[in-house]
Amino acid sequence: MVTYNDDMQDHADFLEKQILKLMVKATENAAVIIRRNYRKSSQYQDKLSHLDIVTETDFASQEVIKQTLTQGMIELGINETEVGFVEEESDVDRVRKHCFIIDPLDGTTNFSSGIPYFCISIGYAVDQKIQVGVVFDPISETFYWGEVDKGSFVKSALNGEKRLKLLNKPIKSWIVGAHLNGLDVFRDQLNYYQRIYPQVRALRNTGSLTLDLCLMADNVYDVVFNQGCYIWDLAAASVILNEAGATIYDIRGNDLEFNWRKTKTKLQIIACKPENKQIILSF
Amino acid sequence: MVTYNDDMQDHADFLEKQILKLMVKATENAAVIIRRNYRKSSQYQDKLSHLDIVTETDFASQEVIKQTLTQGMIELGINETEVGFVEEESDVDRVRKHCFIIDPLDGTTNFSSGIPYFCISIGYAVDQKIQVGVVFDPISETFYWGEVDKGSFVKSALNGEKRLKLLNKPIKSWIVGAHLNGLDVFRDQLNYYQRIYPQVRALRNTGSLTLDLCLMADNVYDVVFNQGCYIWDLAAASVILNEAGATIYDIRGNDLEFNWRKTKTKLQIIACKPENKQIILSF
Repeated sequence: MVTYNDDMQDHADFLEKQILKLMVKATENAAVIIRRNYRKSSQYQDKLSHLDIVTETDFASQEVIKQTLTQGMIELGINETEVGFVEEESDVDRVRKHCFIIDPLDGTTNFSSGIPYFCISIGYAVDQKIQVGVVFDPISETFYWGEVDKGSFVKSALNGEKRLKLLNKPIKSWIVGAHLNGLDVFRDQLNYYQRIYPQVRALRNTGSLTLDLCLMADNVYDVVFNQGCYIWDLAAASVILNEAGATIYDIRGNDLEFNWRKTKTKLQIIACKPENKQIILSF
Repeated sequence: MVTYNDDMQDHADFLEKQILKLMVKATENAAVIIRRNYRKSSQYQDKLSHLDIVTETDFASQEVIKQTLTQGMIELGINETEVGFVEEESDVDRVRKHCFIIDPLDGTTNFSSGIPYFCISIGYAVDQKIQVGVVFDPISETFYWGEVDKGSFVKSALNGEKRLKLLNKPIKSWIVGAHLNGLDVFRDQLNYYQRIYPQVRALRNTGSLTLDLCLMADNVYDVVFNQGCYIWDLAAASVILNEAGATIYDIRGNDLEFNWRKTKTKLQIIACKPENKQIILSF
């Protein structure tokens, strides 16, 4: 029986590695579209408000990701009916045994206005447990990826590849990532800015939560707050962060649970090292 | 006499073009150092506060820029005694007939912490009048440059070259660039955030003023505020912005004057299109 279980595990590991490769390929295919359209795309539609813009690139990126993943999963011998997608732009959830959580362009306002800070994010869940995350920054050409219990990594043209591991830093050297998330919450967020800014080295409001979270896994940010995000902003980054030594909590500091039945649920989060959570909540 | 004056002007134009080329070469040389050290540099010294960090890269970048410019000016037949530099790191000003205003690494906190948003900036002034500006973003590999009365331009690997010209945009689609500039001003700045955020599409706090100003010249930002900057953050960008159709004012909306006798004077600025100034001041 042990041998049998080991074989099962070996097969699962093999499959996960193949799926990771597939996710990398999907982000590369999407990056071609995104890089081609950057600062060229002028057509966009209003979404929820003028604070958020979806570009045609967003849709094109999503389509190529889904096509690449669907085709690849079939080639890996997985029945198409078992492959699902959770994504911002679709009206219906398709949560299946093998489920990809896609943000084809995180930081769409940055992309559409021309700020060089955005990314592509794909998470992979088996039976609603997120197992693998891949994020790609197509401007600095940096990949971040992680697998549960196997670590997370960064690789870029400039700096090569390394394993991600969070260091301890004194509060006064912290960089805080905190966006303003709309008219219903921004006053509270500005009050938070007022309390935390004097304690830390710097505060940034960049416009790509997923990229901020990956940079956090690489010891850039020390705390990231957000009060207007969704599962597709967090799925991939959560694996990358967890494996580096940080956790995404809800805004009160409780463990964050994704609602797989209502994937459009808006989330409010704090990401930090577990040992820093209490001090952060006390600011 | 007309012919003589034309010849003089032709010579001045020729010299300015050569100096522009030299400035581009200097930023390219600096970019090699900056890209090599990005996310590798760990040695830094505290400067004014924990909010500001100078890396060794800053110094190395500055040295290679000054060497390149000095050598190049000599080769152009200009007496070395007529060539001066204004720069953040030097204690003494050396304002001369031909003066380069250098920021060897704008966004040092971003660079030193690993946020991929910073730039190199060189302005060139003749008799204390800024004539040429060159800015380079070594991550997205984007050059911005301008010459007084000859226009400003952007060139990048992804998007090729184009002339910069500001468009009219409705306020609700504006992107505002506004940093927090230290403990003495941040409460006022947060009050400003509170007033302007509901009016616009988005607000960003990115950590590189010079790059924000260049992106403004490329229709990304529509307003940029700063209450803790210096001549070396603004010199190059001011030409690029002016030629694109925007102006850098002091915080009250008056024309900004650089103090060439006290180049370490801290400045507070608003950059915008002249026709938007009154509405911005009224927020």
